[in-house]
Amino acid sequence: ADVKKIAVIAGDGIGPEVVAEAINVMKKTEEVFGYGFEFEHGLFGGIAIDEKGTPLPEDTLAMCKRSDAVLLGAVGGPKWDNNPKELRPETGLLGIRKALGLFSNIRPANVFDCLKEASTLKPEVLEGTDLIVVRELTGGIYFGEKFRREGENGQEAVDTCVYNVKEIERIVRQAFEIARTRSKRLASVDKANVLETSRLWRETVIRIAADYPDVELEHVLVDNCAMQLLRRPSSFDVIVTENMFGDILSDEAAMLTGSIGMLSSASLGEGAFGLYEPVHGSAPDIAGQGIANPIATILSVALMFRLTFGYHDAAEAIERAVKEVLDAGHRTGDIAVDKSKAIGTTVMGELIVNAI
Amino acid sequence: ADVKKIAVIAGDGIGPEVVAEAINVMKKTEEVFGYGFEFEHGLFGGIAIDEKGTPLPEDTLAMCKRSDAVLLGAVGGPKWDNNPKELRPETGLLGIRKALGLFSNIRPANVFDCLKEASTLKPEVLEGTDLIVVRELTGGIYFGEKFRREGENGQEAVDTCVYNVKEIERIVRQAFEIARTRSKRLASVDKANVLETSRLWRETVIRIAADYPDVELEHVLVDNCAMQLLRRPSSFDVIVTENMFGDILSDEAAMLTGSIGMLSSASLGEGAFGLYEPVHGSAPDIAGQGIANPIATILSVALMFRLTFGYHDAAEAIERAVKEVLDAGHRTGDIAVDKSKAIGTTVMGELIVNAI
Ligand SMILES: CC(C)[C@H](C(=O)O)[C@@H](O)C(=O)O
Ligand SMILES: CC(C)[C@H](C(=O)O)[C@@H](O)C(=O)O
Repeated sequence: ADVKKIAVIAGDGIGPEVVAEAINVMKKTEEVFGYGFEFEHGLFGGIAIDEKGTPLPEDTLAMCKRSDAVLLGAVGGPKWDNNPKELRPETGLLGIRKALGLFSNIRPANVFDCLKEASTLKPEVLEGTDLIVVRELTGGIYFGEKFRREGENGQEAVDTCVYNVKEIERIVRQAFEIARTRSKRLASVDKANVLETSRLWRETVIRIAADYPDVELEHVLVDNCAMQLLRRPSSFDVIVTENMFGDILSDEAAMLTGSIGMLSSASLGEGAFGLYEPVHGSAPDIAGQGIANPIATILSVALMFRLTFGYHDAAEAIERAVKEVLDAGHRTGDIAVDKSKAIGTTVMGELIVNAI
Repeated sequence: ADVKKIAVIAGDGIGPEVVAEAINVMKKTEEVFGYGFEFEHGLFGGIAIDEKGTPLPEDTLAMCKRSDAVLLGAVGGPKWDNNPKELRPETGLLGIRKALGLFSNIRPANVFDCLKEASTLKPEVLEGTDLIVVRELTGGIYFGEKFRREGENGQEAVDTCVYNVKEIERIVRQAFEIARTRSKRLASVDKANVLETSRLWRETVIRIAADYPDVELEHVLVDNCAMQLLRRPSSFDVIVTENMFGDILSDEAAMLTGSIGMLSSASLGEGAFGLYEPVHGSAPDIAGQGIANPIATILSVALMFRLTFGYHDAAEAIERAVKEVLDAGHRTGDIAVDKSKAIGTTVMGELIVNAI
């Protein structure tokens, strides 16, 4: 069979622990479904700073480029937080997105039955919440020119937010396409009453909407969206927005589901290639203890199977296995009500592997 | 006695209705506490566009400048939403902030006992939530250069985010001062891992913090803050942040209290002068029906009394009167459980006036 090359970037903190379980899951799908994977490992983030003096070593980037998909654990930690910019894990993250052309970040935020109570929102408000934030990932204020200068009132700092029509078009089209496969509702979020980039964004969305008459479109101002996510989360289907707004809103949406330890994400470019990672961070406080929850990373594999490889059977099998294990009452510490009964990372991983 | 000049900008939608009740409240404090007010009215927002061809007529601005404080109802509505930029109510709002030097927006978000159930958050999570967002209001990406240009990939739009040390210092000092009068905890929100303006922001906050050793300071990244507001709202006391982040977070914070119809705000400059307005908008859908809730505007008067005039006795009397009327079970439609028993704007206003 056609062997897929997977670039594995375990990263920092709990990254290596959760990635190990995700790889076991992929190996199980080789047996069960006959797929084939070849894994190559690379340094990235804090560990790459420590060992190679840069968060994104060239050979790691080269490895990603010759792969069919990237599986990323997590990066960062207090150890590197006060480093100069060039030696910070985040710089590696921004660098890899740009270098691989990953202009789209797909962030599903859905509620897991067994975690309904974990949300700070009332269960009846949360009921039925199942949305996806599509965030533009390689433009805007993240990548515009930034500098300091001396002004009349002391030092001045400048960030520049730039978007061109093409950048907006490709992410917006992708969001419309995703909406089509779901409930056919798209909310485009901007700040068109203040920002020029938002006005160009909105004009472009309106133009492209003509090609998707079957998708219901609403324009929501970013401040209002931050409110509406709280008031009526289940009314959203697909949300598309620019980089900075997407950073904020995708995290707000993730948190309100109460399922942050379970959420996966995909970063995509023009073709099928993608980078997949759990939404949760590197959790340095629990790293190395074998207690981290591997489910978000395992579900990121399911997302990879769907979006990059079209392995829908295996994706479904993974998702079903996760559900089965949870329904049987197995919990890692982060999602356990009775912490004394919590199981560890590898036990959770094995249970899911066995359920596939 | 010393007569205070109040510039009244009723604005659009329900603005005139709620402002009328707030003025009645001020007049009652003249009787009860012997204060004196002189009211002057001016056009602003949509109505000013209709009658004068500009959202911020010069005589309205001049009126504000010769006043001791401004009371604003609400501006905007669908009628003007598709106007060109210069003929939009928001442009007036941004213009008046800049022209009056109102660099600080104070947004209390607290929970009203009678409205605990109105929040989509669980009551036990909300318990004790009482925070203030201090938002920088005349800098950042709102006021930086904005333009379009032709690029390789079609039209390009640019917004510029600029902050200088002085702008950051004055808002941060104000936030520290406010924290001192409260629980002495300040959360400074930025995106220092990505933005140069945020790095300057954080450096400045750290420097100024040396003058406030009694205030406990934490730095929170904006995406994390959007999450933490949901997870642990009651753990925040004062939050200080730049203009765009403040726009989003203050609305998120307001919504999570469930009390959006009750929240007041102040926009302040260097001296005691301030502009006071309810957080809710112009609600064009219910305008002219006499059913709007005037409490947020009435509480904005209490805020004006405290922050601009130091009339603490009258401020307290207003706040106590509001509480009394609510405790007695009176509700406008927006906050009534049994909508059939809802009272109108003027009845609510009169009840509060009588309770002072
Ligand atoms: C670490 C940081 C640079 C990054 C971002 O803001 O994009 C993170 O918050 C994310 O959302 O992936
Ligand atoms: C209307 C708009 C320009 C304004 C802003 O973004 O500042 C509003 O959202 C606010 O917060 O007062």
